[in-house]
Parts: sequence; C-alpha cells; structure tokens
Amino acid sequence: MAGIVTASMPVWEVVNEAAGTTAFCTLNEGLGKVLRYGAYAPEVIERLRWMRDVLGPALAAALERHGPLDLRSLIAQALQMGDEGHNRNRAGTSLVIRELAPFLVEDESLPRARVAEVLRFLHGNDHFFLNLTMPAAKSAVAAIADLPWSSVVSVMARNGVEFGIRLAGLGPRWFVGEASVVEGLYLPGFKAEDAARDIGDSVITETSGIGGFAMAAAPAIVQFVGGRASDALRLTQRMYAITLAESEAYKIPALDFRGTPTAIDVVKLVETGVLPVVNTGIAHKEPGVGMVGAGLVRPPLACYHAALAAFVDAYDERARAEL
Amino acid sequence: MAGIVTASMPVWEVVNEAAGTTAFCTLNEGLGKVLRYGAYAPEVIERLRWMRDVLGPALAAALERHGPLDLRSLIAQALQMGDEGHNRNRAGTSLVIRELAPFLVEDESLPRARVAEVLRFLHGNDHFFLNLTMPAAKSAVAAIADLPWSSVVSVMARNGVEFGIRLAGLGPRWFVGEASVVEGLYLPGFKAEDAARDIGDSVITETSGIGGFAMAAAPAIVQFVGGRASDALRLTQRMYAITLAESEAYKIPALDFRGTPTAIDVVKLVETGVLPVVNTGIAHKEPGVGMVGAGLVRPPLACYHAALAAFVDAYDERARAEL
Repeated sequence: MAGIVTASMPVWEVVNEAAGTTAFCTLNEGLGKVLRYGAYAPEVIERLRWMRDVLGPALAAALERHGPLDLRSLIAQALQMGDEGHNRNRAGTSLVIRELAPFLVEDESLPRARVAEVLRFLHGNDHFFLNLTMPAAKSAVAAIADLPWSSVVSVMARNGVEFGIRLAGLGPRWFVGEASVVEGLYLPGFKAEDAARDIGDSVITETSGIGGFAMAAAPAIVQFVGGRASDALRLTQRMYAITLAESEAYKIPALDFRGTPTAIDVVKLVETGVLPVVNTGIAHKEPGVGMVGAGLVRPPLACYHAALAAFVDAYDERARAEL
Repeated sequence: MAGIVTASMPVWEVVNEAAGTTAFCTLNEGLGKVLRYGAYAPEVIERLRWMRDVLGPALAAALERHGPLDLRSLIAQALQMGDEGHNRNRAGTSLVIRELAPFLVEDESLPRARVAEVLRFLHGNDHFFLNLTMPAAKSAVAAIADLPWSSVVSVMARNGVEFGIRLAGLGPRWFVGEASVVEGLYLPGFKAEDAARDIGDSVITETSGIGGFAMAAAPAIVQFVGGRASDALRLTQRMYAITLAESEAYKIPALDFRGTPTAIDVVKLVETGVLPVVNTGIAHKEPGVGMVGAGLVRPPLACYHAALAAFVDAYDERARAEL
C-alpha cells in the first residue's frame, strides 16, 4: 500500500501491512541526467523543484481521494505485461497513470494545465514505477531484517566500490565484496570505459524476488540491458536453485504462471555456486554526468561466503548451547 | 493512423497511409452485455448514448489536437507488453490512455467531471484497444483485396453459421464452410451449451497476422481463452508454416523478436493441413444476452480447399492463355 509524504522533497511511503514495515523512496526523475545517478546540472535541479512543487502535491491530493495504491496487485499485473519490476517498468507506469488520471483531473485546486503537465511527465517517464517497486521490495524484506536462525538474504546493496549483503539471522551486520563491472548497453554517446562499477540500492528488487529474478516475465527487457530473450527465461529459471519459495502473488505467464523465485538462501547459494542475477542501471564514473546505460551484473561470491561463515559461527554455538 | 468520425454513432477511422486504404470501427463497449454480441437491454442502449454524446466527441477533440494515433507503433509496443491484439488488449488500452490523457484534460470545453468519466470508462474497459487493432488489420489487408495471382487470404469472417474467406487473387468471391464450436472459458453464470458457434469480424486480426498468430507475445491470455502458456508459444510457431512473411513492425520478444507470422498462403495451408489459430469472444446463442466467454477456434478446412480449387481454376486458364 503506497501513499505520498510531502515535505521539502516528496517521497513515496510504502507500507507492508502484513508485517507492519514501512519503506520510503523518492519519485523517479527519469533516465539520463538525474540526481540519483550523480547528475546535478541546472535542469536536474529545476526538474526536482517541479517535482517538489507540482508533481508531489498533485499525486498526494489524487491519492488522498483515491486511497493508497495496492502495489502487490499493480506489480502482479505488471509482471503479466512484460515488466520485471527493476529496469522494465513501462506496464507498471501505465497502470499507475490509468488508475490515478481520473483523480488528478477531479482535483479542482489544480489548474488543468498543471494536470496535463503531470500526465505528460508520467507518460514520458517509463521508469516512474521503479520507485514504487523498490520500496515495495524493501518493505517486504524489512519483515525479515532480524529473523533469528534464518539464512535468507535480507538486504543487498552496492555503492560503486563494494557490494554488501545482510542475512536475516545476523541482523544489521554487513558482508561485503568488490562491486562488479556491469555488462550492458550504453545510452548514445557513452561506452564501457565511462561506467562506474555496480552501484545503488535498486538491487533490493532482486533481494525480494523480482527484477532480475523475474526477467522471464519481461523478455523485451533485453533491448535495454542486452542479451537475448531466451536468456531472460533461463536466468529466472536458474534462480529457483538458490531460493526457498515461489511467490504466491507474482506469477510469470511464460513459466505457466509459476511464482517468482523468492527468498535467497545463502546456504543454497554457496552450495550451488549460483549467483543472483541482477539487472541494473549504469552510472558514469565521474560525478555530475548521470546514468549512461543499463545491463546485467553478478554480485561477488565472496560476500555470500563470508556471510555463511559468520552464520555458521553464530548459530553453531547457539545450537550447541541449546542442546 | 487513426482518427474519430462523429455522426450519430462515433466510429474510428483508420487509414493505411502506405496503401491508401481506410477501415472503420465502432468504439469498444466492453465485455458482457454489449450490442456487438447481441445484447440490447436498456443499460446497453444507455451506454451507447453516452458513447455518442460524451466519449466520441471527447476523443475526437483530443485527437484533433494530438493528431492521429500511430497504430503501427502502438500495436508494436503492445505486443512487447503481453497483448496479442485480439483478446488481450490491456497494454494497448493503457498506451492509448496515457497518450491521450493530457489532451483530454486540456480540452477546456469539456467539464472536468466529464474528462474523469471518460478516463474511468477507458480504465474500466481493457478491450478498448481491440476496436483499433481490428480496423488496423482491416486497413492492412484491404491493400490486397484485389491482387491478381496472389493466393494469400485477404479476408476471414464468420456469422455464427458459416466461416468465410476471400483470396487476394480472387477479389470479392467468398468461400465458406461451417462455423466451428469455440473451445474456451465462460463468464460467470454461462456454460458451453449457451454458446453460439464462431461469430464476428474480429478474425480480421488473425488474417493480418496478429491475434491468435501473435499469441506467443501474450502468454497471460490463456487465463481468458483457456489452455496453457506454452500453448500460446506453440500456436504462434505453427503459423509460420502457413504464412509467407514475418512482420517487420510487430515483433515477439519471447521468440527473440521474430516478426509475427503474416500473410496466410492458402497453398501452404492446404499442403500442410495446418489451420489458422483464432482466439475469439463467444456470443450467447440467443439474441439479447451478449458475450458469454472467450476461447480458441479453428476454421473449417473446407473453405480453404474450395478457395484453392477456385484459384487453380482461375489461374490455370490464365497461365495457359499467357503462355
């Protein structure tokens, strides 16, 4: 369930009602020169001001009358329309537009020209829904942020230098490895030499079982991240080897509606050596430029080995103590 | 390219600019109790009046400022979002909504409450786009309505009793067989005994190479028409055996972006015995009830045999005369 909080910067507030966990996320600015990839040119700042002054309040007012968005339903529908919830979000964005458009129109306090501006911005930004799938994923895995005895991966994140994970059974401890080089496609004017290493929080989508894990639902994504459509199917299928469950909400039509592979078990991962598949945007290595491409990346195995070793250390003693 | 003509009943006007052919279609009313499936209850008539008085003029005014819709681009995008252009149209409908919404809002002559009504109607009718894919298909095949020496099927249509086809090389002559029973899923409260035989003009989508021929793009459609997702892939693949070309505009992500099978050749069809795959709505056999389900149907082989025999008769003589 998602609402909007407006302050100096509007952010999505996403509540996992079953677990009582909440996650927040900025509104998506689009591709290319955007703050979240390190760009800060005048047009970036100007867009952020417009998002603060026009987009945020308009969405907040529409949601006030509409009620919170049902993200589980929207993500489930988007996965049946060629999205995977990380780098292909055209369907989810479309579903949000068509659901909120009547409520935006009915807001008499908003001039019609402003409503049209908001609808054009949303129409022009197919990644808008990404900033709803990320906090949806975060609010889901937040439920296992501290779950004793569980070897499930509760967080994955990267900062361009290191890739870090947490395990449910080990709470806030980080286990890190070197951030990987992303293999992908570049926006016009950019090439592999421009790229920073793997960076950002968006891998929380894969942590929760969508994004790269749901790529079989989104074969057209290979036009954006590279590879062949058959790879998309294969990559999802491989993820069942390292996960404990299949989603009851998120189904993949091309796999005869099998649930997405969910809950990465570090034991299975280390046993099989199969690394999570992550699709991701690529940031320029210099500050100020922004997003330069998108691709596929595999996390470093080292962090999972370290996490499993720490897990065994912690629980081996506790298990002995309880015997 | 699509515009709206408003008269007593608004209809889409779809122009195939390359060939100079035009096709028309009513606006889609939705599922269930709708005129096009034979329902005529007061609420059916009331909806049609609203479509005449509110929806048609609103869309016409929006399109006046927007310019014609680029249907080739919209259908191509929809096929990458889980539509196949006949019985799954949620993506296409979403794309039309997001493209036209700003223009609907900017129409100051339309009260805001009316704009919201229009947007809610579109949001509530995932089949809205069907009445754009049908005339798009018709305007495409109209280009070969009279194409000497061609054994390509230029029209398929059915009326609940007979299934009829035309060949490009034989102009307006009909070749008919008995309309088939549709295998499918039924709306709540209805069952197979209620069904009319295969009926309607919508099979023009398959004639042009989308609909059933593009089902590999739309595995989620099996929830509406029955079968398994793997059937959707298999059925499209089989259609390459009876078609002459692969679409350069409409690509199927799950087949590594292979073009949809296009231009049914009656020679190949009769040689292989492979019948076109058609997915379709099911009408109640009694007048006044409307649509009761949707499913898959295969046309009768007899009409293709008759057409090929007539084709050989016609061109065998001409070929001899020209020697």
